[in-house]
Amino acid sequence: MCGIVGYIGHRDAFDILVKGLHRLEYRGYDSSGVALVNGADELHVYKAKGKVSDLEHAAEGKDCSGTVGIAHTRWATHGEPSVRNAHPHVSNSGNLVIVHNGIIENFALLRDQLKQRGFHFNSDTDTEVLVNLIEYAQQTHHCNLAEAVRHALRKCIGAYAIAVLDQRDPRTLVAARKGSPMVIGIGENDSEFFIASDATPIAEYTKNVVYVDDEQIAVCHPGQPLDITDLRNQHVDVSVKTIDMDLDMLDKGGFPHYMLKEIFDQPNCLRDCMRGRLFAEDDMGGNDAYDPSTGYADPNVHNDVVLSAVRNNRDRLLSASRFIIVACGTSWHAGLIGKQLIEHYCKIPVEVDYASEFRYRDPVIYPTDVVIAISQSGETADTLAAIKLAKEKGACIFGIVNAVGSSIARETDTGIYIHVGPEIGVASTKAFTGQLTCLILLALALGHTKGTIDEKEYVDMIHELNAIPAKIEEVLKHNEDIRLLARTYTYATNFLYLGRGWNYPVALEGALKLKEISYIHAEGYPAAEMKHGPIALVDNMMPCLFVATHHKGYEKIISNMQEVKARGGRIIAVVSANDDEVSKIADAVIEVPDTLAPLAPLLSVIPLQMLAYHIAVEKGLNVDMPRNLAKSVTVE
Amino acid sequence: MCGIVGYIGHRDAFDILVKGLHRLEYRGYDSSGVALVNGADELHVYKAKGKVSDLEHAAEGKDCSGTVGIAHTRWATHGEPSVRNAHPHVSNSGNLVIVHNGIIENFALLRDQLKQRGFHFNSDTDTEVLVNLIEYAQQTHHCNLAEAVRHALRKCIGAYAIAVLDQRDPRTLVAARKGSPMVIGIGENDSEFFIASDATPIAEYTKNVVYVDDEQIAVCHPGQPLDITDLRNQHVDVSVKTIDMDLDMLDKGGFPHYMLKEIFDQPNCLRDCMRGRLFAEDDMGGNDAYDPSTGYADPNVHNDVVLSAVRNNRDRLLSASRFIIVACGTSWHAGLIGKQLIEHYCKIPVEVDYASEFRYRDPVIYPTDVVIAISQSGETADTLAAIKLAKEKGACIFGIVNAVGSSIARETDTGIYIHVGPEIGVASTKAFTGQLTCLILLALALGHTKGTIDEKEYVDMIHELNAIPAKIEEVLKHNEDIRLLARTYTYATNFLYLGRGWNYPVALEGALKLKEISYIHAEGYPAAEMKHGPIALVDNMMPCLFVATHHKGYEKIISNMQEVKARGGRIIAVVSANDDEVSKIADAVIEVPDTLAPLAPLLSVIPLQMLAYHIAVEKGLNVDMPRNLAKSVTVE
Repeated sequence: MCGIVGYIGHRDAFDILVKGLHRLEYRGYDSSGVALVNGADELHVYKAKGKVSDLEHAAEGKDCSGTVGIAHTRWATHGEPSVRNAHPHVSNSGNLVIVHNGIIENFALLRDQLKQRGFHFNSDTDTEVLVNLIEYAQQTHHCNLAEAVRHALRKCIGAYAIAVLDQRDPRTLVAARKGSPMVIGIGENDSEFFIASDATPIAEYTKNVVYVDDEQIAVCHPGQPLDITDLRNQHVDVSVKTIDMDLDMLDKGGFPHYMLKEIFDQPNCLRDCMRGRLFAEDDMGGNDAYDPSTGYADPNVHNDVVLSAVRNNRDRLLSASRFIIVACGTSWHAGLIGKQLIEHYCKIPVEVDYASEFRYRDPVIYPTDVVIAISQSGETADTLAAIKLAKEKGACIFGIVNAVGSSIARETDTGIYIHVGPEIGVASTKAFTGQLTCLILLALALGHTKGTIDEKEYVDMIHELNAIPAKIEEVLKHNEDIRLLARTYTYATNFLYLGRGWNYPVALEGALKLKEISYIHAEGYPAAEMKHGPIALVDNMMPCLFVATHHKGYEKIISNMQEVKARGGRIIAVVSANDDEVSKIADAVIEVPDTLAPLAPLLSVIPLQMLAYHIAVEKGLNVDMPRNLAKSVTVE
Repeated sequence: MCGIVGYIGHRDAFDILVKGLHRLEYRGYDSSGVALVNGADELHVYKAKGKVSDLEHAAEGKDCSGTVGIAHTRWATHGEPSVRNAHPHVSNSGNLVIVHNGIIENFALLRDQLKQRGFHFNSDTDTEVLVNLIEYAQQTHHCNLAEAVRHALRKCIGAYAIAVLDQRDPRTLVAARKGSPMVIGIGENDSEFFIASDATPIAEYTKNVVYVDDEQIAVCHPGQPLDITDLRNQHVDVSVKTIDMDLDMLDKGGFPHYMLKEIFDQPNCLRDCMRGRLFAEDDMGGNDAYDPSTGYADPNVHNDVVLSAVRNNRDRLLSASRFIIVACGTSWHAGLIGKQLIEHYCKIPVEVDYASEFRYRDPVIYPTDVVIAISQSGETADTLAAIKLAKEKGACIFGIVNAVGSSIARETDTGIYIHVGPEIGVASTKAFTGQLTCLILLALALGHTKGTIDEKEYVDMIHELNAIPAKIEEVLKHNEDIRLLARTYTYATNFLYLGRGWNYPVALEGALKLKEISYIHAEGYPAAEMKHGPIALVDNMMPCLFVATHHKGYEKIISNMQEVKARGGRIIAVVSANDDEVSKIADAVIEVPDTLAPLAPLLSVIPLQMLAYHIAVEKGLNVDMPRNLAKSVTVE
């Protein structure tokens, strides 16, 4: 879950590396460090506990020259966050230096073996073991750096993305990966190379990138083409892709935090997500489907959902005996709603599982199953492993992923990109509503193809989904009310979030937001489960948030509210516009526009995102960098 | 979720009613009340907020004579707990008196209609509406009490078990039910009748009982046979059953609380649960399967699991395309383990759903599906409704239920009784391990019949399961250590419980126990999900409990522990005997004997039950009567 950056070329490496670390800081930030080799072939390493800005302070006034270097922002997995444990790590001889993202699982054994051979260790990290293992390989095999890396990695069990430098040969930078993501950017005429955990630190320098695959070792040598081999020293064809990333999207756009920006981005993000997929006729019979060859409206497309993934895999998807959704965290919540959508519109049973549980139990997977993997980053380690397992058993793998070209995207048979742009806020917002939108589109397209959706309901859903971005804009107008409401609840140390049916996963997601950024122990529950235990917690210090829009189960959830009220609990409720029942019971209500039940989550989650955001800000917390969390969980 | 008792006959009603209320107090206890008609046909009603003992105080020195009466212990659903809202409720004329368990959903409308006709109301309850609706029916139809009850109930939407008295006719007691449980005990020669929500208040007076069915009205008139009709006034055949209930099981057996008694009962309860079902050969080739005709060991039974439910429904179960487990609360946690068991041993996909969510969404149910309902009480309203829905769609319904003759038991096609005896502690313990044992037996029997379980693994599991009760006895020896450990954690207001694989549902169950009786906000999570949000909560005030027995995922969970440790979290771990890895990291460890992975939950949950118990006792809380909770959730 760490972020790594490397540079070799003709520019000042330090500036590129530090700027890259800032871009990657969302991946973890309990410490950071940089290593540079200057013109005199001297290695300098600077580290700091805390954020990248602390590293910049630490390096002030020191020798930061050099056109080659590697850098790291860390999220601790082995050893506490400290300067001693921060990367880069240097080998015993002082010649080799490494940055590493991932976990070497057999590091304790390897460390013992190296100790017997006279190596000593200054940190608690698996990474320091790895750099010395490479050094040991150099010594015993008398080989070059790439060769030594290969020898060392063949002894390692675990996940890694590494970049390694030898101060004695500063024109070569070696990188390798297994399980953890890695992208290499290639400068003009191979004059310079950029290594990073994702493309954001690279995008402003070059559009040409290579996604390094598992068990591959890349050698960057300015002036020579990128050289990639596998662990058995077989050459691999280098496939250069072009990235197209809008740098403005990486900035906060005038909002105090990325998270708030991304909350407010949602109407436009969902429009992007639906563009070219959802076609809703206007009152005049026109539509927004264009024939690209003529530039005119395509008269053959009326109200419709068009997904190439469904069109191109029609038979496979129609013959699915079961869908299995695997995901983690927020994506798992989207999956719970996806289950209801697909069962409702396609009449196919759907199972939803935590990717981590799925991959390690003994799941029954048939070749007729379709496994849907949902992931914002497309790098979630457990989800990636889950689909590899399902693939081995012959299932069709369908991805719902935001990051184009990510590991999961490349591993799937087909899928839908979420297309909501890079998400920087650690607490996911627009990715969640984007995932939901994709699942709605999928259920509608598949149900319509299969004939299990009523024609009128199909058209109604298309029109209503088309109207959702504008309705989210309505919800966003409550921002100031919610900010004021949030001030009342900064005292809370605990919260229950309750919902039923379509809104039950929304309750889980709302609670997760509050946990992530406000450090308030909020827990989500299907409202009926309250009586099977959680209601014992209810007193006047435990506020309860009910998601109670005017759909099936509304009367039941009012009964649940009365039970909380009877025990002195404080109630906040998200309700449909013009609700007059709940306001008699609840201490505070937040209205969202009316919509069709399956679309309710797209509206009802928005106030919960805003509430979590404002409570965190009111508590003085750093919303974009919550403690202990990292954006993309690329280790198990 | 209330408890009702009624008596009519020749004895002093008050003593029988109060004793009965004590037996039913586990069903709810925020207020209670009793109504008696004395020898001069005078009605006396006494009520108190709080426990049944408070009612006894309130009635002290008052006229408690009479051989007919009704009584109630309440768990609020409409209106706050108070004397005003406590049952029994009297009609406007003062003639009719009622006790009611359930919810009349259209009570607001009925109340408005009665108000227009001049009725007034003293409480906020739906019950007071019902008793006046009966009075209104008497007035308009000039009929007897039973007839008036019928007229009134035909106007009601909702669930009820009621007992009604008219002080002008004290030789008649009328009872009716729909959705809520009701048993009627019949005295010798029909000389007396006992009405109750379950059989425990009746068992010491008579063994002859009738389970009243939905939409039936019973008229008890001493000296005449019990008369039952339905809502359309059709006579119903009265089917008298014999109950065999061990009254000693209803007492605390020397333990300070029912919960601790039931925790310590578990070895013997599981032996009861396995008796006649699990046959394990001893070293001499003998076995404990007896041929009842000869009294000698049956030489034809070797290592085997014999379940009549599987033997008698072989084809139906073997041809199942899918199992769907529906349950609530603790039973739902057992279901999550059941899924792993059935998928592992029978290679049939299993879905687990909250009963409340299942019944209200649009689930895909095929006639080839087998739906397993798990419930201790057999009266859980949502679970009952879920199986009725599945039955309509043609699925086979399989029950795993503790209470013999309960509504769910009667609604299922086949099943396994848990046979762990009545569970009185509100926090379920022995019912959970009993449910797990039944699921293990089911998976083994079915897997063996289907041929999907390896013969050696089958025999190994049989032997190991047979050894589990003795291993639980080993775990129980740690009681004093756990009591001392609990003292350290009474400060905690929050807790995380983490596990993987077989132990992930155990983490959920352990957290639920702590919630229920200690009012500590404990939350369970699959350990890998920690990094997707909950880890933001971790600091030195948020202890983390890891269930980390030595099975698949052990190394991964140690990584998770290190991540918590690196952030200052306090760690308690449940580990396998002789574990020496975890003790280096954890602040405290509790050892359980080694066993096969699928049986791990039966051992690892025991320390979590004890920990929750001791923390609650240390905090001075009433373990057997946690606030806000009721034993059996018979309303939605």
